[in-house]
Amino acid sequence: MKAVQYVEIGRAPEVREIPIPEPKPGQVRLRITAAGLCHSDWFVMGLPQSVMGHALPMTLGHEAAGIVDKLGEGVTEFSVGDDVAVYGPWGCGACDECTRGRENYCPNAAKLGIRPPGLGAQGGMAEYMIVDSARHLVSLQGLDPVEFVSLTDAGLTPYHSIKHQLANLPAGSTAVVIGTGGLGHVGIQILRALTPATVIALDVNEEKLAHAREVGAHHVVLSNADAPAAIRALTGGVGADVVFDFVGAAPTLETARASVRIDGAIEVVGIGGGSVPVGYGTVPAGASVRAPFWGSRSELIEVLALARTGQLKVSVERFDIADAPTAYARLHDGSIVGRAVVVP
Amino acid sequence: MKAVQYVEIGRAPEVREIPIPEPKPGQVRLRITAAGLCHSDWFVMGLPQSVMGHALPMTLGHEAAGIVDKLGEGVTEFSVGDDVAVYGPWGCGACDECTRGRENYCPNAAKLGIRPPGLGAQGGMAEYMIVDSARHLVSLQGLDPVEFVSLTDAGLTPYHSIKHQLANLPAGSTAVVIGTGGLGHVGIQILRALTPATVIALDVNEEKLAHAREVGAHHVVLSNADAPAAIRALTGGVGADVVFDFVGAAPTLETARASVRIDGAIEVVGIGGGSVPVGYGTVPAGASVRAPFWGSRSELIEVLALARTGQLKVSVERFDIADAPTAYARLHDGSIVGRAVVVP
Amino acid sequence: MKAVQYVEIGRAPEVREIPIPEPKPGQVRLRITAAGLCHSDWFVMGLPQSVMGHALPMTLGHEAAGIVDKLGEGVTEFSVGDDVAVYGPWGCGACDECTRGRENYCPNAAKLGIRPPGLGAQGGMAEYMIVDSARHLVSLQGLDPVEFVSLTDAGLTPYHSIKHQLANLPAGSTAVVIGTGGLGHVGIQILRALTPATVIALDVNEEKLAHAREVGAHHVVLSNADAPAAIRALTGGVGADVVFDFVGAAPTLETARASVRIDGAIEVVGIGGGSVPVGYGTVPAGASVRAPFWGSRSELIEVLALARTGQLKVSVERFDIADAPTAYARLHDGSIVGRAVVVP
Amino acid sequence: MKAVQYVEIGRAPEVREIPIPEPKPGQVRLRITAAGLCHSDWFVMGLPQSVMGHALPMTLGHEAAGIVDKLGEGVTEFSVGDDVAVYGPWGCGACDECTRGRENYCPNAAKLGIRPPGLGAQGGMAEYMIVDSARHLVSLQGLDPVEFVSLTDAGLTPYHSIKHQLANLPAGSTAVVIGTGGLGHVGIQILRALTPATVIALDVNEEKLAHAREVGAHHVVLSNADAPAAIRALTGGVGADVVFDFVGAAPTLETARASVRIDGAIEVVGIGGGSVPVGYGTVPAGASVRAPFWGSRSELIEVLALARTGQLKVSVERFDIADAPTAYARLHDGSIVGRAVVVP
Repeated sequence: MKAVQYVEIGRAPEVREIPIPEPKPGQVRLRITAAGLCHSDWFVMGLPQSVMGHALPMTLGHEAAGIVDKLGEGVTEFSVGDDVAVYGPWGCGACDECTRGRENYCPNAAKLGIRPPGLGAQGGMAEYMIVDSARHLVSLQGLDPVEFVSLTDAGLTPYHSIKHQLANLPAGSTAVVIGTGGLGHVGIQILRALTPATVIALDVNEEKLAHAREVGAHHVVLSNADAPAAIRALTGGVGADVVFDFVGAAPTLETARASVRIDGAIEVVGIGGGSVPVGYGTVPAGASVRAPFWGSRSELIEVLALARTGQLKVSVERFDIADAPTAYARLHDGSIVGRAVVVP
Repeated sequence: MKAVQYVEIGRAPEVREIPIPEPKPGQVRLRITAAGLCHSDWFVMGLPQSVMGHALPMTLGHEAAGIVDKLGEGVTEFSVGDDVAVYGPWGCGACDECTRGRENYCPNAAKLGIRPPGLGAQGGMAEYMIVDSARHLVSLQGLDPVEFVSLTDAGLTPYHSIKHQLANLPAGSTAVVIGTGGLGHVGIQILRALTPATVIALDVNEEKLAHAREVGAHHVVLSNADAPAAIRALTGGVGADVVFDFVGAAPTLETARASVRIDGAIEVVGIGGGSVPVGYGTVPAGASVRAPFWGSRSELIEVLALARTGQLKVSVERFDIADAPTAYARLHDGSIVGRAVVVP
Repeated sequence: MKAVQYVEIGRAPEVREIPIPEPKPGQVRLRITAAGLCHSDWFVMGLPQSVMGHALPMTLGHEAAGIVDKLGEGVTEFSVGDDVAVYGPWGCGACDECTRGRENYCPNAAKLGIRPPGLGAQGGMAEYMIVDSARHLVSLQGLDPVEFVSLTDAGLTPYHSIKHQLANLPAGSTAVVIGTGGLGHVGIQILRALTPATVIALDVNEEKLAHAREVGAHHVVLSNADAPAAIRALTGGVGADVVFDFVGAAPTLETARASVRIDGAIEVVGIGGGSVPVGYGTVPAGASVRAPFWGSRSELIEVLALARTGQLKVSVERFDIADAPTAYARLHDGSIVGRAVVVP
Repeated sequence: MKAVQYVEIGRAPEVREIPIPEPKPGQVRLRITAAGLCHSDWFVMGLPQSVMGHALPMTLGHEAAGIVDKLGEGVTEFSVGDDVAVYGPWGCGACDECTRGRENYCPNAAKLGIRPPGLGAQGGMAEYMIVDSARHLVSLQGLDPVEFVSLTDAGLTPYHSIKHQLANLPAGSTAVVIGTGGLGHVGIQILRALTPATVIALDVNEEKLAHAREVGAHHVVLSNADAPAAIRALTGGVGADVVFDFVGAAPTLETARASVRIDGAIEVVGIGGGSVPVGYGTVPAGASVRAPFWGSRSELIEVLALARTGQLKVSVERFDIADAPTAYARLHDGSIVGRAVVVP
């Protein structure tokens, strides 16, 4: 079968021919219908061997959807032919976090060598994929895999973050979204669907801001040093209840810090290398800051359900598997609008 | 192997010799180290065939602990020799509830014919038991199975109920426990461990009330028509923040109704056949009433962890498997103090 | 000044000329700009003297907005000329509930003889009104008092109830609204604004159902004995996550009981005299039932903020104060669409 | 009357004779029965004029208890002779935070020039004190003012922080307390009363650690660079669910950062000048960090209720008002054990 693989540290991804894998007991083989590209693929491909910690070549793709193709022994939850999406942040399945479906925070995964597909384990950007357990599958129930596969990360990640902050976003509150790309443009829609908050979107040019308005932002602000003052002005001087920073770089986090209200919250979703110092006087009193990671199994069920109600649109650019290297190059250049999806 | 079975509608349970079962892929066979008896066993044995809905004979026992004896194919989470307890309220494993570990509220279990062991599926009161999935096992991590097996129901059920009400039990609050037997005496201890609430225990005689004091009740009150007035007096006229009724009969629920405060809560844990009418004027404004069922997987992990810290003691009477019918008879007569446990 | 008063048990309300009251220290006098009529006014006017417990004549009106007209000594929070709405469920101000703004659940109000304006204290359906404390005023910040005065009850009550259930209404969930009149039609809008839930509205005729669709219901169902089956069909057999019954009569509550899912919730908001029996087997496992009352101070701030964002429309019929008795008669006859508001 | 005042930037506090103040409408005069000293007094006295922002001389004391001595006009909630404690973090009383009793996070206080007594407004370390509003008083209901006055800050602050983290501290969890002095030694007791968590206390010498054990810590660890490893060892490698740092200096916060688990939390309570950088990879995934401030009105009610149940002991050293300057000097030197209280 064809697979898009990261073969050697520092080399661009390639399409290679490899054997179709067989599912072991408890595993499931999918025939892939869609696989999404993500900036975090490039993040991982930028790591040195010493940090990487797993063997190459590795098939890329942590956003995957497919049709159940073959069941390992003992799998009873799904049938061949079912349309499913893959829950990516695999955990041990038995700890206090995993039993609540929060495998994204499994404390045992690292020491057990459990890694997400495409981010350590063999991923979904191929004709077939092995999913380690039926518990990592969620039924699509009619959703188009190409349009919605990205929700497994680009939807789940903002959904998880927003849901964590739901109590901070009652009527009359304000949410700021910094970065309106892959995750951000879905995040704005989730905020509109889940909360009555006024949404202020920040990005670096007018075209992106226009897109943010289209997907539901009430106000848009250029992301620069003047942004905190603009946010203060839009919130009667109080500041934002929650700032979701999908960039996570030093300048955007400084905007977040300067814009959040007393007793508010900052979610550092982006992996842009910045951080917010939290201590007495460095952030407003009571404001919490955290860097969430991906989302839980039940949240994936929920975000897919949200899509089925028609409340989410994902901007998708479709690529044949042979063109995946080109797609990765364009993702790197910043010339992908929305989300790139490979269709084997 | 020997198994304690309910063989025919209306007949008392019997010890029978049946074949040792084999685990299918995904399943786990336990060599049982302890199995608890429960009033709900008698409840089920009191049902007519038409309601029962599953085949007989059925091995009893929904509180079970054992040593992993044989793994079905594809099971990797546990090893032969591991000491485990069984999580009893089995669900489909894939729905919104099950993905959060709340299999006790699985909306699909009934229609899929999934039933708890000993309450529809073959139970744990035998020398060996098949557990349908490794996800229904929790490691004992050193807990004595005979002393603590009852926590899988008699501990998990009150833990789940109390945890649901945690926000209603801050410092200065009052919790009422009606019925201080198998579940109630564990419930009192859990309340003391998890909350700063003042605990008022109600039961029908002084001996039971003395026991309630021993396990941590701050106040004890005879359970009769004067109890609501006594509870009002102990709460400055306000009433109880939460009433946990482990009996659930009409008179105890009337006490609950008459004792709960505005904006309080009643948990109808007991299956005594009563109910509280909830509408405008029938209960104090804002007071919620619910009948919880068992508990979640993560709550079982937690209640076992609580036992390991030494904060829980379970009163246990131990029986050989051959004496299980006698134990059931004594349970029926009300002559068991605490919890009866069969040790194969 | 003119005041709409309930003068004698069993007599219809009358417009009477009474002296303009003076604010004592700590109190505030409003010049009323709008006062809403409510079915609960008729409920109170239907009570016998023995239950009523307060003196007549009493000025009606527990939904009130006005302009601050005169400040009692010591009031510093507001200035003469401020546009405000009145928070109605007055409490003691010092207990555990009141310090969180939940005066609607004050355990001391009854014994201290504190009653809401228009429901025991002198109300707002007059040219002027005394508000007992500045803490019972909320700034309108530009909202039209005539259109939005009803939010102080018909908005606050559903908002409070919905907010209590927010965690039960994630993406993919279903909320049922029974009764789409004064409170219900606002409740549907609040559900749409605060949650991603699918909203099913029930009422007794097609005209009301058409209105329910207009204000945001996704599905409408005639409120009769077939409704539970329709709700099951719309929820894949699972049932509704939360049922908000704004009628609260025996038949609607039976619908609620039969429609709610395992681990769901029923909010009995209407005072129609019915109740739901809650115990083992009478409602689905884990489903909670409560009868909420009005709402908190911060929730009033929030629901007014929601109106300012344009997410709430209230259907209002306007009456001169002289026509208030006619308006009450029409409310009684059921010929008011939406909410009746008196403008002095 | 005698008052302990901060007279001039940089000068030590002095006992001065000033007129007894009169309560204006809405205000309450207390005859002080106890006033606590706090490190934050020294923090404020260390600020330059430019930052201070309020006039001197200022009577110190933000922990105060007294007997209601005279009521301003319009005050009805309390009577002369009532024993009360003062809620210190005064807010505007009308915003979304204040209506929930969270005046400690009032967004308007700063711009309105509202400051806590003893930290900007005239404080309670005097024979008499003016409290700006009856809503800032909480009844002592029999608590000894000298022993328990410190709970208004040294109890309320950890109570607020712990309560915020309650959902993160179920059975089986671990809480770390860094710094076991004034706030920390009360925090350990609150953790034991409110949660089933295992408590690990850190401090700089064996004497302090012995005290921490006495007040309830399960484990004690010297606060140095080896502490994170010790905490990991005590938590099976997982790390602490919540770290409460009552010191807040750079080294203790580095311990907090290195000890907290994935999906855990750090509360930076101490004002020691340090901060934790929060971003991708700088703290474990999902771990939140915040710097809480003081507590809410209802939390003060709760922490006093906790004291009445006998679950809190405060180590107090008592001083006459004439000796307050000495007490401040000793506080500065670190030679006060527990909490210093002035009794006029």
